[in-house]
Amino acid sequence: MADSLNCDLKSLSPLQLFERVTEQGEKVRALKAGKAPKDEIDAAVRMLLSLKLSYKTATGQDYQAGLPPRDLVLINNGTTKEEDEDFVDPWTVQTSNAKGVDYDKLIVRFGSSKIDTDLINRIERAIGQKPHRFLRRGIFFSHRDMDQILNAYENKKSFYLYTGRGPSSQAMHVGHLIPFIFTKWLQEVFDVPLVIQLTDDEKYLWKDLTTEKAYEYARENAKDIIACGFDINKTFIFSDLDYLGASAGFYKNIVKVQKHVTFNQVKGIFGFTDSDCIGKISFPAIQAAPSFSSSFPQIFNGKENIQCLIPCAIDQDPYFRMTRDVAPRIGQPKPALLHSVFFPALQGAQTKMSASDPNSSIFLTDTPKQIKTKINKHAFSGGRDTIEEHRKYGGNCDVDVSFMYLTFFLEDDDRLEQLKQAYTSGELLTGELKKVLIETLQPLIAAHQERRKQVTDEMVKQFMTPRKLAFEF
Amino acid sequence: MADSLNCDLKSLSPLQLFERVTEQGEKVRALKAGKAPKDEIDAAVRMLLSLKLSYKTATGQDYQAGLPPRDLVLINNGTTKEEDEDFVDPWTVQTSNAKGVDYDKLIVRFGSSKIDTDLINRIERAIGQKPHRFLRRGIFFSHRDMDQILNAYENKKSFYLYTGRGPSSQAMHVGHLIPFIFTKWLQEVFDVPLVIQLTDDEKYLWKDLTTEKAYEYARENAKDIIACGFDINKTFIFSDLDYLGASAGFYKNIVKVQKHVTFNQVKGIFGFTDSDCIGKISFPAIQAAPSFSSSFPQIFNGKENIQCLIPCAIDQDPYFRMTRDVAPRIGQPKPALLHSVFFPALQGAQTKMSASDPNSSIFLTDTPKQIKTKINKHAFSGGRDTIEEHRKYGGNCDVDVSFMYLTFFLEDDDRLEQLKQAYTSGELLTGELKKVLIETLQPLIAAHQERRKQVTDEMVKQFMTPRKLAFEF
Repeated sequence: MADSLNCDLKSLSPLQLFERVTEQGEKVRALKAGKAPKDEIDAAVRMLLSLKLSYKTATGQDYQAGLPPRDLVLINNGTTKEEDEDFVDPWTVQTSNAKGVDYDKLIVRFGSSKIDTDLINRIERAIGQKPHRFLRRGIFFSHRDMDQILNAYENKKSFYLYTGRGPSSQAMHVGHLIPFIFTKWLQEVFDVPLVIQLTDDEKYLWKDLTTEKAYEYARENAKDIIACGFDINKTFIFSDLDYLGASAGFYKNIVKVQKHVTFNQVKGIFGFTDSDCIGKISFPAIQAAPSFSSSFPQIFNGKENIQCLIPCAIDQDPYFRMTRDVAPRIGQPKPALLHSVFFPALQGAQTKMSASDPNSSIFLTDTPKQIKTKINKHAFSGGRDTIEEHRKYGGNCDVDVSFMYLTFFLEDDDRLEQLKQAYTSGELLTGELKKVLIETLQPLIAAHQERRKQVTDEMVKQFMTPRKLAFEF
Repeated sequence: MADSLNCDLKSLSPLQLFERVTEQGEKVRALKAGKAPKDEIDAAVRMLLSLKLSYKTATGQDYQAGLPPRDLVLINNGTTKEEDEDFVDPWTVQTSNAKGVDYDKLIVRFGSSKIDTDLINRIERAIGQKPHRFLRRGIFFSHRDMDQILNAYENKKSFYLYTGRGPSSQAMHVGHLIPFIFTKWLQEVFDVPLVIQLTDDEKYLWKDLTTEKAYEYARENAKDIIACGFDINKTFIFSDLDYLGASAGFYKNIVKVQKHVTFNQVKGIFGFTDSDCIGKISFPAIQAAPSFSSSFPQIFNGKENIQCLIPCAIDQDPYFRMTRDVAPRIGQPKPALLHSVFFPALQGAQTKMSASDPNSSIFLTDTPKQIKTKINKHAFSGGRDTIEEHRKYGGNCDVDVSFMYLTFFLEDDDRLEQLKQAYTSGELLTGELKKVLIETLQPLIAAHQERRKQVTDEMVKQFMTPRKLAFEF
């Protein structure tokens, strides 16, 4: 799985680039017709060539006058990035709104369902416990077929959980924990097996990495995942590079998915072009296959029909829309999904978090002092410019990153509501709100680091060994 | 690997189809303009729709008036099938010449090298034995880097052999044995390890087969291959569906190849279109990967640099041109190749052999009586229409299928030359030549059947178990 906010899209859409090339071509022609000075024409031609190159890089096609990039218009379900529209796919999340992506629009565009109060209440009844704060606060906000999972659960039929991570570097930040924190809770309340895919092959294909390095990152990331507290008897963590060559079931499901998805389809869903390597083009099947229990014969005793539930950030949904489309055609049940919002960068919900910019997020390796400094210096504030103005007009929780982080990590609902009231009224200052966040995150991360220290190589090896789990199938 | 002569190409080229659609469109317009009877117009419209569908099936694109299928012009290295030109790719071999494909032209087009007398003499010196009749008679006629294999061999550096088969059905015919007969000889004279790939995943992707059925065909075909007499201590036979999930090295090489080949490239090499499934598009990497010794850590002790030699029919060369292009970019040696001609159908070198037409070839399950009847009834003759004419003008060995088959299977060079002289001069009649072929093939096939009977399921299992072979690396 890719980092949610690892945006690589150049700021211009293919169509905008096309228009720029066209304009620049007209400019060159005008300069030539007007017998402009040679250096002026040369500069304009250089710019034209550079724009054409950008166009080709973005679209995989040579610029052709009069032929706008029509194929690309349908990328990502009929949407390209427009001025006011968010862009979401597994590699790019982009929004111009300080509040972040418009998730209600995304539900409509992706065709998923909102997690509404009725569903949350039903989950509460089924598990006999208070729903996780991520459900109570709309952090997991969208789903597919969660009602079917509950029907089955209420009828004593088991299911399994599947989530994952793309190990692009050793460094994980607090945002990367969201799916794992939630998955751990789901595993505990439903008591079901869990498989966690580390897509080291994906990272090898997309990044400038060797297979060895990608695998090393997978093992390092596994330590942070294990440190979340997963039960070794109920959890199987696997690297694709490793497990694909060690499973009698995984490749068979991959090739079945690959037979039922065309290049046209992955072009439409993921925006692949003819210049992409065949590894990228066929990769979606590798993320799809763990949705089918027969990929894990050692866990499910070869059974093909165990229902799968996938908690993930919503940018991963394109993979599973594709999987759900293929499933009935290869005689497998469709996986159900629970989608989360994206975790914002410290600088604000419309900027990107980057592993290469240590100030864009709180890393799991940060010291208490680093956490304090980062939040104080970099966390985008919804407060006013002066204390006087703040007291008078109040702060804006919708864009304040410290408040957003607190909605993720502060368990106490009443306290959170009090903070919101106090900040909005101006009673609570930005520095005071930041202090609450610092005091919330410091012990959480220190505890994580403590648990991670206790994760040995031997434990990683055990978690990553294909084996039977503590369930009968 | 695909059956050499399993031609599926519809008789019209994409361009010809395009022209037919255009003509039919004009006809419909003319009928409408001329207010022709409704049923006449309807019939013309139905024909138009049917042609458009054929066009889409052939090109993967919708017909667009005025836009001929330009992209397809460059398929298969810049050649499409023209009137007098042979068409050769892994799925299609087509020629209009009764003598068969023009192999000298193919060497030029594919950029391989002719196996000339110098090379054959050098092989003879290296192994200290008479070269195999397939070399003496130009049946293996083309190569890549065979001189490097010999350099290495003369310097006591080992290499390994890799060949394969696409298990599309249980039935194998005598032509399918050619690469195995030759590979067995190579293995014996050079004393090197051999890996044999059964591409059951390819057959699943290309044909209307389940994975189970494709795997069953792989195991059945393995019995016929084992019956050729391969040494179990020196030979590893594997099904992709099986071995991909059982090897620590195979998938890593596959994903490395997949990272270094784009869709544009496989489109150019194999003629894939946007409508092809992503399994087909990424499959070439799976046929490429066994060219690298690290795909078999159990045999080569994890060593990455053991040179590979691939004997195969020349229609498989596109896979290995691609492999050789990628090899240096992933730090692996390029595989060397020995290419064979195609085995002709009984009806003549320009017709196709078909597993669904039992009379198109001699099958390994045929009885002596079936062999006799098939040859007498169906083997295309280069003889004259009457005995008188034949005695007067002589027969034509270049197009006579019985004579062609004898060049494959009759070991005695002098006897073959005598037969050629006698047939060409008219001294030997067609029936007499056929008798020689019948008497040559009957004992060969009976002996094969005898050996195959002795191949137990246990032996198949042993051959297909990943293990160390009788070589140290």
